[in-house]
Amino acid sequence: MEVTNTIYEIAKNYETPFVLLDPKLLETNYKRLASVMDNLEIYYAVKANSHPEIIKTLFNQGSHFDIASRGEIELLLSLGIPGQLMSFGNTIKKEKDIAFAYENKIEMYSVDSEMELEKIANNAPGSKVYARLLMSSDDSDWPLSKKFGTDIDHVIQLLVHAKGLGLIPYGVSFHVGSQTYNKYKWKEAIVQAAEIFYQLKEYENIELEMINLGGGMPIQHTRPIPQIEEIGLMIKESIEEYFADVKRLRVIVEPGRSMVGDIGVLVTEVILRSRKQKDNWVYIDAGVFHGLLETIEDFRYEIIVEGKEEEETGIFSLAGPTCDSVDTIYDEVELPVSITMGDKLYFKNAAAYTVEYGTTFNGIKPPKAYIIQ
Amino acid sequence: MEVTNTIYEIAKNYETPFVLLDPKLLETNYKRLASVMDNLEIYYAVKANSHPEIIKTLFNQGSHFDIASRGEIELLLSLGIPGQLMSFGNTIKKEKDIAFAYENKIEMYSVDSEMELEKIANNAPGSKVYARLLMSSDDSDWPLSKKFGTDIDHVIQLLVHAKGLGLIPYGVSFHVGSQTYNKYKWKEAIVQAAEIFYQLKEYENIELEMINLGGGMPIQHTRPIPQIEEIGLMIKESIEEYFADVKRLRVIVEPGRSMVGDIGVLVTEVILRSRKQKDNWVYIDAGVFHGLLETIEDFRYEIIVEGKEEEETGIFSLAGPTCDSVDTIYDEVELPVSITMGDKLYFKNAAAYTVEYGTTFNGIKPPKAYIIQ
Repeated sequence: MEVTNTIYEIAKNYETPFVLLDPKLLETNYKRLASVMDNLEIYYAVKANSHPEIIKTLFNQGSHFDIASRGEIELLLSLGIPGQLMSFGNTIKKEKDIAFAYENKIEMYSVDSEMELEKIANNAPGSKVYARLLMSSDDSDWPLSKKFGTDIDHVIQLLVHAKGLGLIPYGVSFHVGSQTYNKYKWKEAIVQAAEIFYQLKEYENIELEMINLGGGMPIQHTRPIPQIEEIGLMIKESIEEYFADVKRLRVIVEPGRSMVGDIGVLVTEVILRSRKQKDNWVYIDAGVFHGLLETIEDFRYEIIVEGKEEEETGIFSLAGPTCDSVDTIYDEVELPVSITMGDKLYFKNAAAYTVEYGTTFNGIKPPKAYIIQ
Repeated sequence: MEVTNTIYEIAKNYETPFVLLDPKLLETNYKRLASVMDNLEIYYAVKANSHPEIIKTLFNQGSHFDIASRGEIELLLSLGIPGQLMSFGNTIKKEKDIAFAYENKIEMYSVDSEMELEKIANNAPGSKVYARLLMSSDDSDWPLSKKFGTDIDHVIQLLVHAKGLGLIPYGVSFHVGSQTYNKYKWKEAIVQAAEIFYQLKEYENIELEMINLGGGMPIQHTRPIPQIEEIGLMIKESIEEYFADVKRLRVIVEPGRSMVGDIGVLVTEVILRSRKQKDNWVYIDAGVFHGLLETIEDFRYEIIVEGKEEEETGIFSLAGPTCDSVDTIYDEVELPVSITMGDKLYFKNAAAYTVEYGTTFNGIKPPKAYIIQ
């Protein structure tokens, strides 16, 4: 989202910190992704931003939803979204949450272990399951490598085991890592998924029908990114090449950040500027515990300071408002040299994984989200 | 807090994850700290755990309170605690929060910069201010070194400037870092504070009256710690030695973790155990976004698994319930070899900085806190 004079005007109405969201941009993002490939099914990853307006806008566009917990299922049900449109994509599910999902007609479940299969067989008998393949993720900003997924041989074993448990071995998923810059990562994963399809058909008489490409498509921050069309083309061509033999194939994506990240801006205010020894410090009213948690892994946002867009910059340390040193956003960041108390900072493309990470630490409320009408 | 059969019985009443708190242990902790030195004034750091029962118990014991924001002031006022018993210890305060504090009779404010002094002069005229000295903190688990405090010369300049602004230059504070193991750190800081008292009296005709020792006293986790009495004795002797010339001296401490950390236990349940490649993984229903944020800096809790206390252990990766790789608690931790779904894990001495750091990420509610009657 561009930070324009209109945004400055709207921002005057609210007390900082807050996130401004523009659902019209969300419609554009949805259409753009949907058009990269025929029959691409979009399951929005609700965890990125669960604001009801975002959910409703995407539902109206025809989106399905990737959900992580009973809490997210309940939210979507309360907005009139049926369970059939949801996929339970978390490989770590409470048994009673699986039962709740099954009661509410959720049909697809993610797994990467035997025990998870058994939980699903016991609580959602006969359901479709897809197994998550472990990918390396060296080319992403927010790696997802170790906790989820498993290797090809194990994925195959799991899907065979699923059949034995009376479940439907349905497909393969992977996640190349959030903010992945290298489009060939998707190709690499698709080749591996095709191998699983092939082996299961050839040796186990199991015909999978679904490939779930996960999320990970990047949005613009401070580094150049491949465009969604470019990644989409890579995916389309790879699927055409490696899945030519698969008769019925559903292709699913689970965009989170790439769907909502750039539809909003985090607006904060400078509380204090100070000089200590050789360092200049700027303190703002959002921070690691209040919307900017991803910066602990040095996730870099583009920052605009209202009224000082063209000013010469200097190097500052930027920190949040709490009594905790971990609440330091950037040890070094360029900001306008005259930055001072009361200045408003706009963190661009900050609608994903910001409000969702908020705490009330230090008695300070997390940023609110407001919708641009 | 010891994890006994009684705790196991009580834990059966609640759905995991949750923190069990025992206010009787809090009374013991308060009395123990208060007895290390005559006239030691205790300002409990509310940010460590702001549960109303904790605040009320400490108030009844005679505690004062170190607060970080308007939200914490409002909480304490709602519990009948007057502003005179609060110190505004955050060096990063919103101007309107300072005004609110002043209206509500808060008398003492922390600073480490000129601009903060000016904000206080404008919004809380005539108030007492204390300046925060920057300490190195190599011997602590959760460092506080860079964001807060400033050097001796700057502290002196700030307190002189305070006088010029019509404020009362009142004292010096420092923080040796959370979970500090080296008692000599307090002595080192006291020597530096004494130097500031001396110089201001000798050259500026300013007589400071207060030294604020901050927090940082450790509680038992997996490493041996110095006892509170041992640190207390070091503090007492250092003050007697280096502040012998100061006629009126208030000595303040701001315990957070050391006051509440060991009065509670975080109770969680295993959702899933899996084996991937060569690693064994255990997933529980609390995690980095749900009470265990401090583990991202490898903060180590002692963990008890109910019914498997005496079992042989193996090495596991331990992770939380969300779809985020950052939500990995420990890459390697010893747990009973037979650990499996449904087992209850008790994180000992986990009453500080756990509930306060909770988010609702992935639609999963943060741990609740329950009081042991």
